[in-house]
Amino acid sequence: MSGLTSSANADSGRTVISVDAMGGDRGPAAVVAGISLSAKKNPDISFILHGPEDKLRRLVAKKRNLEGRVEFRDAPDVASMDAKPTQVMRQGKTTSMWSAIDSVRNGEASACVSCGNTGALMMLSVVRLRKLPGVNRPAIAVLWPSRNPQGFNIMLDVGADISADEKDLLQYALMGASYARNGMELTRPRVGLLNVGTEEFKGRPELKTAHDLIEKNAENANFDFVGFVEGTDIPGDKADVIVTDGFTGNVALKTGEGTASLIGARLREAFKYSPLSRLAALMAYTSLNRLNKRIDPRRVNGGVFLGLNGTVVKGHGSSDATGVSAAVKLATKLGQSGFSERLAARVASAVSLPQDDPTSTTDDNK
Amino acid sequence: MSGLTSSANADSGRTVISVDAMGGDRGPAAVVAGISLSAKKNPDISFILHGPEDKLRRLVAKKRNLEGRVEFRDAPDVASMDAKPTQVMRQGKTTSMWSAIDSVRNGEASACVSCGNTGALMMLSVVRLRKLPGVNRPAIAVLWPSRNPQGFNIMLDVGADISADEKDLLQYALMGASYARNGMELTRPRVGLLNVGTEEFKGRPELKTAHDLIEKNAENANFDFVGFVEGTDIPGDKADVIVTDGFTGNVALKTGEGTASLIGARLREAFKYSPLSRLAALMAYTSLNRLNKRIDPRRVNGGVFLGLNGTVVKGHGSSDATGVSAAVKLATKLGQSGFSERLAARVASAVSLPQDDPTSTTDDNK
Repeated sequence: MSGLTSSANADSGRTVISVDAMGGDRGPAAVVAGISLSAKKNPDISFILHGPEDKLRRLVAKKRNLEGRVEFRDAPDVASMDAKPTQVMRQGKTTSMWSAIDSVRNGEASACVSCGNTGALMMLSVVRLRKLPGVNRPAIAVLWPSRNPQGFNIMLDVGADISADEKDLLQYALMGASYARNGMELTRPRVGLLNVGTEEFKGRPELKTAHDLIEKNAENANFDFVGFVEGTDIPGDKADVIVTDGFTGNVALKTGEGTASLIGARLREAFKYSPLSRLAALMAYTSLNRLNKRIDPRRVNGGVFLGLNGTVVKGHGSSDATGVSAAVKLATKLGQSGFSERLAARVASAVSLPQDDPTSTTDDNK
Repeated sequence: MSGLTSSANADSGRTVISVDAMGGDRGPAAVVAGISLSAKKNPDISFILHGPEDKLRRLVAKKRNLEGRVEFRDAPDVASMDAKPTQVMRQGKTTSMWSAIDSVRNGEASACVSCGNTGALMMLSVVRLRKLPGVNRPAIAVLWPSRNPQGFNIMLDVGADISADEKDLLQYALMGASYARNGMELTRPRVGLLNVGTEEFKGRPELKTAHDLIEKNAENANFDFVGFVEGTDIPGDKADVIVTDGFTGNVALKTGEGTASLIGARLREAFKYSPLSRLAALMAYTSLNRLNKRIDPRRVNGGVFLGLNGTVVKGHGSSDATGVSAAVKLATKLGQSGFSERLAARVASAVSLPQDDPTSTTDDNK
């Protein structure tokens, strides 16, 4: 352990983000380039970087703007992208992932960012940070480009767990609404429950139970429940928060990614077809670039783990510097807003209230 | 009943397609415009049109190229888009949908096309055409734009039923492979089972049972089983046929549609941003048009109902003439290939074989 001390970080008044330098397919150079980008854009962040210290020091030394803003925690081992979560657990505290989560656990960082193995990151986060009282299944929430004024919707769970009963789905609704208030400044988010067909007579029977349970709790929890929504509404403007189980959410997320990527590839092909179309592509460059900024998944990078005592942001495994920087931005925003504490209060209030006779409310909006 | 007689249609040597003129959001004018488009492109098709006869005759009379190629079946009632399937059942044989299916049932048409209420169309199809021996749950299969050389993948079920056990999933694999052979000329289709994560230790336990069952039957049924696939693979090139339950498939389908539609809207906005970008859009017109042809959902319009004694193609509810024509094209192709009979033979052969000791094969490839 060397570099700046914790207290130096704390004294700076900066928000401290704990970063797993070894997570992700592109290695530590991409991660360091990402935090350098974040440091450039936002003078109020500093970092604790976890991984093989010598290697990381050399990479950080090349980025002038990181001088004095990075602490190091030496962690020689890597949780590989294809390891089983239990294997990573056995590797224990020598992995950069474990170490990165522990900086949140012991309070020296406001949030943790890792682009590593999702299953392992979730398991370590649950073990080290513990679930919030009253939360049965933590969830992963993502931002999804949408037709809403805020530009994005929140969807959860996208893969923390493969199933969810009606109580889990209610908690997802509460946690998603809280995330929308703190991450998107929506005072009264609209929550929808994913199903097939929006008519009441369609869909899985267990979802009807969840529908009624969420409806009953909406007013008290300060969100609007818009009822059942369909796949088309995930990028739509009917709801701000889409609630579903982790299996369905993960399939939807990856289907959306695959579709966007295929369209992008076809667009590039279309513009390479002939000399005229190549010229048109040149002229359209700024338009296409503008489009790219609005739908580029790297810019909305970051699944947030909800339901834990601490904020963990999971970046996409293939994140480059832009992707890492987006994940850091999100972690910073949530860290600065005291999101974790507000979420805990929200869930606790819902849990302690008798469902049919709400006598008090907790406002996590302010 | 008037117009051409059935025998006149039969004598023409044309493939006869039965069309529900009242299905779909855009009414009979869009349907008639669609079959006119089909008639122009393919001289080997004739039609039986179901709906209010006077109205349909007036619409058809305006299309010169339909002269002598359309028979009418008077059906005054409409199965509305938001009616419950059981309501439509009660309306009975006076609906254009029922009438259209019956033309396949009584052998006067090779396939049926409707853009109407999916739930009602499936229920009527099951009741009037009956399930194939050995099929528990019929499925709806769609063509999905993909990175594969054939340009599309097949996915099923996308919403005929909201759940599926391992035997249903095996039947979907058999039916999907058969569809790929007859609809796409793929001799040995690659079949994947949709799950979250491709590692063996992830995903729902019941899917592992299905995985093993499909694997065991693949060789005998003449397809390659590529194992678990993820949402990203639906538009990918790892598999030609993606098998899943109707709930997950429907969410994936609608997520893909919603994502493509959002990107399309953003693309148009990007090109309207400034005078220069509008000029670029003009220059890029042919490129964008070429792209549109490759990913336009109207051109791959048509979910096929699999597992019934007869071919039913469900067009998108919002189909315009192009969409209806695409659905007719698919119905014609399947009708001409004798797909329905081959599929029946395939399913029957799989059902009658002892699973562990296959002693014969039925080849539905020729």
